[in-house]
Amino acid sequence: MIQTSHPGNIGAAARAMKNMDLEDLVLVAPRDYPSSEAFARASGAEDVLRSARVVDSLKEALSDRELVVGASARRRSIAWPELDPRAAAQHILQTGYRTAILFGREQTGLTNEELECCHYLLNIPANPEYSSLNVSQAIQVMAYELYVKRLSGLKGAEPPSQERPATAGAMASYHGHLERVLRTVGFLHPTKHEESIQRRLHRIYNRAAPTVEELHLLRGILTRIERKISEIEQEP
Amino acid sequence: MIQTSHPGNIGAAARAMKNMDLEDLVLVAPRDYPSSEAFARASGAEDVLRSARVVDSLKEALSDRELVVGASARRRSIAWPELDPRAAAQHILQTGYRTAILFGREQTGLTNEELECCHYLLNIPANPEYSSLNVSQAIQVMAYELYVKRLSGLKGAEPPSQERPATAGAMASYHGHLERVLRTVGFLHPTKHEESIQRRLHRIYNRAAPTVEELHLLRGILTRIERKISEIEQEP
Repeated sequence: MIQTSHPGNIGAAARAMKNMDLEDLVLVAPRDYPSSEAFARASGAEDVLRSARVVDSLKEALSDRELVVGASARRRSIAWPELDPRAAAQHILQTGYRTAILFGREQTGLTNEELECCHYLLNIPANPEYSSLNVSQAIQVMAYELYVKRLSGLKGAEPPSQERPATAGAMASYHGHLERVLRTVGFLHPTKHEESIQRRLHRIYNRAAPTVEELHLLRGILTRIERKISEIEQEP
Repeated sequence: MIQTSHPGNIGAAARAMKNMDLEDLVLVAPRDYPSSEAFARASGAEDVLRSARVVDSLKEALSDRELVVGASARRRSIAWPELDPRAAAQHILQTGYRTAILFGREQTGLTNEELECCHYLLNIPANPEYSSLNVSQAIQVMAYELYVKRLSGLKGAEPPSQERPATAGAMASYHGHLERVLRTVGFLHPTKHEESIQRRLHRIYNRAAPTVEELHLLRGILTRIERKISEIEQEP
């Protein structure tokens, strides 16, 4: 981050980085740092702030980098190879180069001289009427794309642990029960309409894909309705 | 955004939204709003703040929504369909449903009751050691994915009105009706158990996401049950 004015943005950036498992933060001539506001906004990512390197010049920051990407609003006047965050993540991880991603000042971004240091410009797709992201938000987006790309390189996402769904047999038996109740209460009559209603009910409950336990609950409701009706009917 | 504590986060969210060409911000019971800090952080996106709707309850916010997605840290204990931001953007744009994306409190996220309103949970891939993003950063990531997906030209055909999902308001009213019937037949009693049953029923029908027409069918069943019971009760 180059000459950042608001220490809050530095803290927010540290948090965004740690969220995405990045930690190598370099601050080039920050305006107001160290700062309690930065630490407040880091909220749990103070370690990233504490290990951040503070340097005087961009040159110093970049000395060991093999690839430099500069975040910049799109400038049509500059013919520079551009990458969006997803393509940048791809390129960075594919090459395995030691990479720096530069984020400029809140108001004015990167100078032309700083852009000269970049192999690529990073352009975040945005509303053409209002395209300038807050610097910590831009860092969040880029860090997120790096994290997602790294994940995809490791292995597929773990499927969410789910309860086992009720079997087709149990569902059929539920629908038999439901049909019985619907006849008892007079919702279903033997007309040609009846079949379409049944089909639609099947569709609804199929989509719900109840678990064994949930189906038990639904059946309990049907049983209770039947019992209630027969109780009332037996009253003198 | 639900019960946001820090107005700065609301401002940052407004900016992130406008950057990504979104504008429909709803604030549910914000702790400190309107606020000059929100406007300062919005920095050019004051129009989004100014047109934000402030409501008292989530129910009010969701009444006309057809699809509800809740941002939540991964909870392995809850078997809920999960989407990452990219898959969520895909689903939202493909269906064309009127969608709400819920973002909870800074410290505690969404309550279980709020999660019950969701068809999907939004899970942002993140460092398992430090997975909780600042709320405005989470909004930035989701809004970015929506913008990128929209750029790619994906837009589903408008579904015919009968096949559109029932709104959250219509579902709430169905659950009210179901509850009445379940009391009438004695399936629900005022015990501590009752709440858990209701929660499970919400979950089942939420997952089924009935269309307007299907919900009409389900309500017809409830009405018929009620009528049958009152008929029998009136028999001499």
